[in-house]
Amino acid sequence: MTQLQNQAIYVASRPTGIPTAENFRKATQAIPAVKPGQILIRNEWLSIEPAMRGWLADANNYASVAVGDVMRSFCVGVIVESQAEGYNVGERLMGWFGWQHYAVVGTDAIVQKITATDLSPSLYLGVLGLNGITAATALTEIGQPKQGETVVVSTAAGGVGSCVGQLAKLMGCRVVGLTSSAEKVKACYEQFGYDHVINYKTDDIAAALKTACPDGIDVYFDNTSGKISDTVMPQLAIGARVVICGTASIASWDPVPMGPRIERILLTRRARMQGFILFDHMDTYGNYVSQLEDLIRAGKLNYSEHITDGLDTAMGAIAELYRGENLGKRLIRL
Amino acid sequence: MTQLQNQAIYVASRPTGIPTAENFRKATQAIPAVKPGQILIRNEWLSIEPAMRGWLADANNYASVAVGDVMRSFCVGVIVESQAEGYNVGERLMGWFGWQHYAVVGTDAIVQKITATDLSPSLYLGVLGLNGITAATALTEIGQPKQGETVVVSTAAGGVGSCVGQLAKLMGCRVVGLTSSAEKVKACYEQFGYDHVINYKTDDIAAALKTACPDGIDVYFDNTSGKISDTVMPQLAIGARVVICGTASIASWDPVPMGPRIERILLTRRARMQGFILFDHMDTYGNYVSQLEDLIRAGKLNYSEHITDGLDTAMGAIAELYRGENLGKRLIRL
Repeated sequence: MTQLQNQAIYVASRPTGIPTAENFRKATQAIPAVKPGQILIRNEWLSIEPAMRGWLADANNYASVAVGDVMRSFCVGVIVESQAEGYNVGERLMGWFGWQHYAVVGTDAIVQKITATDLSPSLYLGVLGLNGITAATALTEIGQPKQGETVVVSTAAGGVGSCVGQLAKLMGCRVVGLTSSAEKVKACYEQFGYDHVINYKTDDIAAALKTACPDGIDVYFDNTSGKISDTVMPQLAIGARVVICGTASIASWDPVPMGPRIERILLTRRARMQGFILFDHMDTYGNYVSQLEDLIRAGKLNYSEHITDGLDTAMGAIAELYRGENLGKRLIRL
Repeated sequence: MTQLQNQAIYVASRPTGIPTAENFRKATQAIPAVKPGQILIRNEWLSIEPAMRGWLADANNYASVAVGDVMRSFCVGVIVESQAEGYNVGERLMGWFGWQHYAVVGTDAIVQKITATDLSPSLYLGVLGLNGITAATALTEIGQPKQGETVVVSTAAGGVGSCVGQLAKLMGCRVVGLTSSAEKVKACYEQFGYDHVINYKTDDIAAALKTACPDGIDVYFDNTSGKISDTVMPQLAIGARVVICGTASIASWDPVPMGPRIERILLTRRARMQGFILFDHMDTYGNYVSQLEDLIRAGKLNYSEHITDGLDTAMGAIAELYRGENLGKRLIRL
C-alpha cells in the first residue's frame, strides 16, 4: 500500500490546571511500517475523558502521558492492516489508539473486539466503554448495593454517574443524585430514573440529603471529593460502602488540601471506603460489556452522547468538559 | 441466702476530657433478688479500657453510659446463684458485669464461659478479651495480611497493638510499630518481636517509615488517627488495607478536626479503609479466643498485665491509662 500520512494531536506542554487547547499541537507524520505482532488501525471515534487531566498532570499519576507523545485516548477504529494473529482487516476494535487518524499498535493496546453490529460503535467509548464498565464494576464489586438500600451518586448526570444511578435502580435501590444544573436535574429524573436529585450549586446539600436519605446512606459513589463528600460522609449508615472513583472537585493535590477527618465516621459506622481504577479489573471487562449490551437492547439503560466532528475539536474538549459544557459522553467523530 | 451488700462504682458526672476519679463515686447497695433468667455474679477481675473515655463522652458514641449508672466494664466473675438455664453455680464467665463486687444480670450480659483452667482468668479481659480478640478479628478480617507483606501498627506496645504485631509476624509479615517511649520501643522489640520500631515522639516518622517500609505499607492498623496517620497514608502500597480501630490521638471530634484529604491516596493506591468495632463480630469471638489460647499455651503470644488491688483503684485508672502510666493491660483484682 502507498505510505499513508497521519494527523495526530501531541502533548505540547504540561497543563498547570485544566488542560486547554494550548497544551496540544497537531502534526502530520508518515505512518511507520507495521511490524510482526502489530496492527494498523484507522480511528473512527476518539474519546474525551475527565481522567485525561490526571494523565497529563505532572503528579504521580497511575497513567501519565509524556510531553511529545500522541495524546493517550481510548478510541474505536477498524483494522486496515494486520501482522498480528487473530486480528483481521475489517474488524472493529476498542483500545488505546490515541488522538490520531491512524495508529500502529501492538495487541496490548487493544481493550476489546467489537462484534455487535446492532449498536453504534461509539457506545464502546461511553456507556459500553470506560464510563459504563467503570460504573458497573465499581458499583458491583466495591459498592455492593443490596435491594432496598440507599445509593448516593456525586456526579449523577455524568458518563459514569448516570450509569451508576440506573444500575443501582435496577438493583432495587433508592437512588439519590447530586448534579450541578437545572438541566442536569431534569435529565437525572427523566432519562436516568433517579428517585431524588439535588442541585449542589443551589440546594442546601446537607438538608436535602437528610430528606432524601432518612435512613442514612448505604453506598456513596464518589466522583468529586471536596465539599460534596464532606456533606455526604456524616450521613453514612452503619456498614456503608464508599467508592472513590474520582476527585473531580479538587483542582490540585499539591499541596494536599485539608478537609474534615473521616476516621471517626468510618469507625462509628463501620464503614468501608475504597479506591477504584478500572485497569485493575480488565479480567471482568468483557462480562460487564455483555451485561450492559443486553440492558441497552432491552431499553433499560439510557445514555447521552455529545459528538463533534474532526480531530481539531479534541484539543479544547477536555477544558469544555471541566466547564460542564458537555451533555453526555464527549466524543470526536473522525 | 442472706442478703449481700454490694459495693459499686457509679458514674457521677460526665468528663469534659479524660475521665478522672472525680467523675465517679462509690456506693453500697443491697443486691436485688435474682429473677428467672438472671444470674448473680461475684466479680474477680475488672477491666480498664481506653474505650471507656468514649463510653463516658456525651457524644454519639456507640456504647454510651449514663450518669447514675454503675460504670460499664468487661469483668471476669464466678456464678454465685443462677436462675438461667445452662448456667451453673461455680462457673466462670466473662461479660458486662460493671465496676462492682456483685452483679445481677441477664444472659445477654455474658460474653463467654471460661472453661480453660490452665490460664489465668484475668487474660480473658486482655489478650484473650477485648484487646486480643479485636486484634485478631480486625487484622484477619479487615487487614487481611498476606505472607511477605508489610504491616504498620500505630500503637505498637498497647493491648491491641502488641497483639496485632505478634499475630502479623506469625502470619509471615514484616511488622513495623510506632510507639511513644524508649521503654515501649524496647518492649516492642524484645517482647512482641517487631522487625522495626519507631518512636513517634523523637524520630522523623516519615523518614523512618520510608526506611522501614521500602516497598510501601500493605496493612496499616490504626489506633490513633492524627499526625501518625497523616504520615503513614502517603506511604501506602497499591492494594493497601487500612483498619480504623481507634482514634486515640484526637482529643475531641466536636468540631471535627481537619486533616489532609485522603481520597487521592485511596484512589491512586486502590486502597481500602474500614472501621472496625468488635461488637459486630461476636459470632466469631469464641473461635478467635480458642486460637489465641493455643498460641499462649505454645508460648507464641506474649502479653503484659498491670494489676492493682481493690475496687477503689478503678476510679483513677482511666486517667492513668491516658497518661501512659500503664505497662500492659490495666486490670483491677477484687
